[in-house]
Amino acid sequence: MNTAESKLVEYFAARGKLSPAKFPIGIGDDMAQVKLSGKSSALITTDILLDGVHFDSKKARPEQIGYKAMLCSLSDCAAMATVPIGAVVSVALPRDFGPGKLKKLHSGILKAAKQYDCDLIGGDMARWSGRLVVNVAMMSRPGRTKPVRRDTAKVDDIVCVTGALGGSIIRRHLGFQPRIKEALLIAKAGANAMIDISDGLSTDLNHICRMSKKGAVIEAEKIPISKDAKKSKNPLDSALNDGEDFELLFTIPKKKFESLKRRWCFKVKLTAVGKITRESLVKIKRPDGKTVKLIPGGYDHLRVNSKS
Amino acid sequence: MNTAESKLVEYFAARGKLSPAKFPIGIGDDMAQVKLSGKSSALITTDILLDGVHFDSKKARPEQIGYKAMLCSLSDCAAMATVPIGAVVSVALPRDFGPGKLKKLHSGILKAAKQYDCDLIGGDMARWSGRLVVNVAMMSRPGRTKPVRRDTAKVDDIVCVTGALGGSIIRRHLGFQPRIKEALLIAKAGANAMIDISDGLSTDLNHICRMSKKGAVIEAEKIPISKDAKKSKNPLDSALNDGEDFELLFTIPKKKFESLKRRWCFKVKLTAVGKITRESLVKIKRPDGKTVKLIPGGYDHLRVNSKS
Repeated sequence: MNTAESKLVEYFAARGKLSPAKFPIGIGDDMAQVKLSGKSSALITTDILLDGVHFDSKKARPEQIGYKAMLCSLSDCAAMATVPIGAVVSVALPRDFGPGKLKKLHSGILKAAKQYDCDLIGGDMARWSGRLVVNVAMMSRPGRTKPVRRDTAKVDDIVCVTGALGGSIIRRHLGFQPRIKEALLIAKAGANAMIDISDGLSTDLNHICRMSKKGAVIEAEKIPISKDAKKSKNPLDSALNDGEDFELLFTIPKKKFESLKRRWCFKVKLTAVGKITRESLVKIKRPDGKTVKLIPGGYDHLRVNSKS
Repeated sequence: MNTAESKLVEYFAARGKLSPAKFPIGIGDDMAQVKLSGKSSALITTDILLDGVHFDSKKARPEQIGYKAMLCSLSDCAAMATVPIGAVVSVALPRDFGPGKLKKLHSGILKAAKQYDCDLIGGDMARWSGRLVVNVAMMSRPGRTKPVRRDTAKVDDIVCVTGALGGSIIRRHLGFQPRIKEALLIAKAGANAMIDISDGLSTDLNHICRMSKKGAVIEAEKIPISKDAKKSKNPLDSALNDGEDFELLFTIPKKKFESLKRRWCFKVKLTAVGKITRESLVKIKRPDGKTVKLIPGGYDHLRVNSKS
């Protein structure tokens, strides 16, 4: 999400005031939360994937496209530390996208549905002269904790990420792993704020800080850089700005982070990269020791997206 | 939904077997129903609207497009006799669709949200070189009755419609009225099956009958034909097949229909057009007195849509 689009989302959020009793979490987070009867609540997200933006139908197979579409929404469920329930999928089909291709797209959706225990429960389809569009709307429910929001980072929280960042476009962006189980443990350990890194660490950390009215300092040398990013011209830049990592970025008090590390039972790495600060500025300590402003740059060739 | 697409939806429903305990209503109805903790449940629907198919961005203003997108999903809530809660909206934006137009689209969404007490709670947007796409995913909750399904019509039920049919493309398709309150009363009166007429009476009656494993006979002379359809070359054909009426089509035992008529307090007309039969054939008694098969023909120039 670039600055102009960020401002638009804020405009939308301001114009459509929501009742916090009905919607404890509204526009601006990874998912909205809806209170239902009794103590029950559900969360909902929507993600639109476009040919030529989020996938390239000339390179990606229909199964991969259906699979990725589900993964993106599953990653939103993870970002809130919630448990996926079911998805409805809309597709706009180009004229030459016949029943055979559609069945393959469907099988990619079902593969993700099975892997992450999130059923496909409905959909809509329409044919047109345009390119392929896949939209997934997904419902989830809170785990054992409240959903973890973006806007609740606290001063002195440790800033952490799962996995290694950058270079997703080379391979991972079609088959990454939404960190659902990891997120549930992170929430149980007491994380204050969380987001999935869809726009790049630099942008998504700025989201957390802006919405929490805090700042952050991260250290370049601590950022876990993926193998694919290491092959690029500027690995650090790639890790900061490529986007579509779909790893978790969260903030958590130091003691709780130590306890989380002890309980961590997943293959994926957990890395502390910095700290939340009182001063509303997001900064990075560069390898040369100089601390500079970290500009949101995760606005890449692949994704011009703006989750609201 | 044409026959090929209808078969695809059946293929999808068969491949993705759902647990009825978790999902009392799954693929194939207007909305899916999700059981949550306690006695609570929510319903969800998704509708994709495409430039050149469901609206023409050269003729319709952005407000009208946003408004219509919400109305379509609201009509799904009505079709199940449920109460809308909130919507998430995804948009794919053409390069020349600037912030001004987007704000107008948003104001159309908010207008419908206010009118039908269904808040906009989240969304996603992405820019691309294609045409405008608007996808609405909407959540609702059951009213005082269970949601009314498509597949539960009973032999000897009266077949009824609200409003007048046909010619929607001339004016109504951008500003119709989802029959939410009407649907709640119809459900309370004891309707057995219901659908909203999006693909035309002929097609949607065939949906109800096929899914309920029943047949029907309707009388051409009883079908309420809209003023706009009356101006067309073949008003009856228009009323049967145009689609996008977004009126309710429901089936109800005779006695309950009589009681419903007495309690009817809405401006919109209520008309009995025929009866559900045991024999799995959908027929129409023509004005010339001859009874013939009613072929699904609501597959029009405007909408090539396939709700699943």
